[in-house]
Amino acid sequence: MDRWDDFLAPYAQAVDELKLKLNSLKKQMSYNNHGPIEFVTGRVKTKESILEKMQRRHITAENLAVDMEDIAAVRIMCEFVDDIYAIVGILRKRHDMDIIEERDYIAHKKPSGYRSYHIIIRYPVELVTGTKYIKAEIQIRTLAMNFWATIEHSLNYKYQGEFPPEIAERLRKTAEAAFLLDTEMSNIHDDIKEAERLFAQRKRNDEEDKK
Amino acid sequence: MDRWDDFLAPYAQAVDELKLKLNSLKKQMSYNNHGPIEFVTGRVKTKESILEKMQRRHITAENLAVDMEDIAAVRIMCEFVDDIYAIVGILRKRHDMDIIEERDYIAHKKPSGYRSYHIIIRYPVELVTGTKYIKAEIQIRTLAMNFWATIEHSLNYKYQGEFPPEIAERLRKTAEAAFLLDTEMSNIHDDIKEAERLFAQRKRNDEEDKK
Amino acid sequence: MDRWDDFLAPYAQAVDELKLKLNSLKKQMSYNNHGPIEFVTGRVKTKESILEKMQRRHITAENLAVDMEDIAAVRIMCEFVDDIYAIVGILRKRHDMDIIEERDYIAHKKPSGYRSYHIIIRYPVELVTGTKYIKAEIQIRTLAMNFWATIEHSLNYKYQGEFPPEIAERLRKTAEAAFLLDTEMSNIHDDIKEAERLFAQRKRNDEEDKK
Amino acid sequence: MDRWDDFLAPYAQAVDELKLKLNSLKKQMSYNNHGPIEFVTGRVKTKESILEKMQRRHITAENLAVDMEDIAAVRIMCEFVDDIYAIVGILRKRHDMDIIEERDYIAHKKPSGYRSYHIIIRYPVELVTGTKYIKAEIQIRTLAMNFWATIEHSLNYKYQGEFPPEIAERLRKTAEAAFLLDTEMSNIHDDIKEAERLFAQRKRNDEEDKK
Repeated sequence: MDRWDDFLAPYAQAVDELKLKLNSLKKQMSYNNHGPIEFVTGRVKTKESILEKMQRRHITAENLAVDMEDIAAVRIMCEFVDDIYAIVGILRKRHDMDIIEERDYIAHKKPSGYRSYHIIIRYPVELVTGTKYIKAEIQIRTLAMNFWATIEHSLNYKYQGEFPPEIAERLRKTAEAAFLLDTEMSNIHDDIKEAERLFAQRKRNDEEDKK
Repeated sequence: MDRWDDFLAPYAQAVDELKLKLNSLKKQMSYNNHGPIEFVTGRVKTKESILEKMQRRHITAENLAVDMEDIAAVRIMCEFVDDIYAIVGILRKRHDMDIIEERDYIAHKKPSGYRSYHIIIRYPVELVTGTKYIKAEIQIRTLAMNFWATIEHSLNYKYQGEFPPEIAERLRKTAEAAFLLDTEMSNIHDDIKEAERLFAQRKRNDEEDKK
Repeated sequence: MDRWDDFLAPYAQAVDELKLKLNSLKKQMSYNNHGPIEFVTGRVKTKESILEKMQRRHITAENLAVDMEDIAAVRIMCEFVDDIYAIVGILRKRHDMDIIEERDYIAHKKPSGYRSYHIIIRYPVELVTGTKYIKAEIQIRTLAMNFWATIEHSLNYKYQGEFPPEIAERLRKTAEAAFLLDTEMSNIHDDIKEAERLFAQRKRNDEEDKK
Repeated sequence: MDRWDDFLAPYAQAVDELKLKLNSLKKQMSYNNHGPIEFVTGRVKTKESILEKMQRRHITAENLAVDMEDIAAVRIMCEFVDDIYAIVGILRKRHDMDIIEERDYIAHKKPSGYRSYHIIIRYPVELVTGTKYIKAEIQIRTLAMNFWATIEHSLNYKYQGEFPPEIAERLRKTAEAAFLLDTEMSNIHDDIKEAERLFAQRKRNDEEDKK
């Protein structure tokens, strides 16, 4: 395979379109800069990373477009775990992409400790030669999950191989600690909402009494 | 109608998506920075321009989205007149937009002298609330047509009304002169291609003779 | 103050330029998509947020440009705490901005638990009317600090006021837990580097022995 | 010279920054989408074009950064010839670039018929390794000049060599015709302004008479 640029161009186009569309979603769901989507990123896998993964996963050049589902990937970062499922619900209703598969690595974390919600989509890119359907991955995470996943990925990249068991165990523990933080933040959020509800109710009762 | 931002948001989204997609088309059709699409622009009509046009064309607020077809508009600039029709042919095959109407103001120029190829499309924008189909206009022009149309539009905007007949006549003449330039440029292009064809053929003949 | 758009335009310009420049820095420091800067964001404070802060901090319209230092703000997210100081060192050497003040809220966290490194800069924006120097804030954080600060800010915004003491205490605890995660991730990073160093040394020794 | 990406990166950065800054200038000079700057483009010369020009102009690798002044180039398109000089005046006052040279190919057209105003600047790009000053070219043209120059450049690129005298002559004539159009458009513009001035004066006189 020599024409990497030709091969990767539709993936780059898909990433650009998906970033634009998901940033529009972010804006629609926001008011005064605040909303459930914190930010959106995207990237096309580099030639080097594709070649490395082909070797590691025994993927042939012929099956590359079918078997490697994250050549184009966009990532949505949320504040709370509940936001993730809300966004999944919204994505399911879209007509500009077909969801092929959903993988809930939050309910079922990976052995490494990794958590995220993955959606594999089939996305149409219009080319001069016609419509080309490519696979792309949408990853939806909290900021805490993203913190962990980013560093773990980075250490993995630098380490170039399997972590020693002691390191893997410590990373698993940090994943759990990060998830505990997500849970506590959700609890605080819920408690604030409940406190405000009670406060508003008491205020209404007081006003009733005054009459 | 008070919520202008809400009304215009899907149009802005459409313009952003169309610019991204048509710039991708430009890139696909280019080699070493050269190709038939020179550049792509886009804009959402301002609130002021929409209100002015509603009054001038007697468009009610209820019919605005149906009757005003250029609230979202993108423009493709080409080098030669032939390129315009080639691009129209490519746009007709796309599956991410429906062509509602085509207006060939090149074969049939407007009384003012205006020339361009207009395509009115129905374009789906995905919102949190579902798919919204909006109308958008794609204008395809040569650089010479764009030169004339831009200045005429600008003078019109500054003049705020009907041009006096003498001015209108002079503008019509510049439109014709600009179109003559387009024709001559196409002729030069054709003559160069023909000269190269003859040159290549003579070379082949010479090589034949040497055998 | 009626002409908000005019007032905010140079700030928006500064944010756009700083994002472009810091994304270039990110790219320069990366190899194969990996580097110390994870991502860069930026925003101009909304009119609503400016008015609210003016009231809260008793800032007059005359002193707004001097006293409110985060109307334009960009944010750099890093993987490890050490990366923050490395980037501060690089920013100090730049000639396209003047550092007015540095606030190390990592060494000296805020009472709320907030951690970040803040740099207040004086940044020149070229206008038709001449060079305008505006203040802007560059916030440099780890992903874990950003996780905490984002959610705390969001809860604050929704709550519109002082947190009850019990909530404030729980948020402080999550800030400490997030910082512990940063520390542990740095330790793991150091341990991996040390393990690799030892491994490489052993390999060299073995090769020496074979001779 | 093997590390093309490293060599070209600061030029790409300069083009991105200049486009951002000149688009800001466009916006500052506009009202309701109308102003003297019609659009801004920019590009980094491709490796292929640089190599071709080095050979044609006998530029060595050592002198490349000094002798080739258009590796980074941005282009400003205006409506009227007068706008060009107005923008040159504004650019001269900027503090974020140094003008090294100005070439007025409007007053003194090239033998080919080419017209444009060229400004060679020295522009600072901040790198991790320090400030790097690069040369860049700002081309300022009317839309009519751009029409001609774009097609001439394109024909040249396809033709790969000197035009035959007859073709060169026809291209020169189209350049003159395009410039005549610029002149006539300016005249129409002036006449409209004068007509409006007279109209306004007559109206004032009539109002005076009524008193």
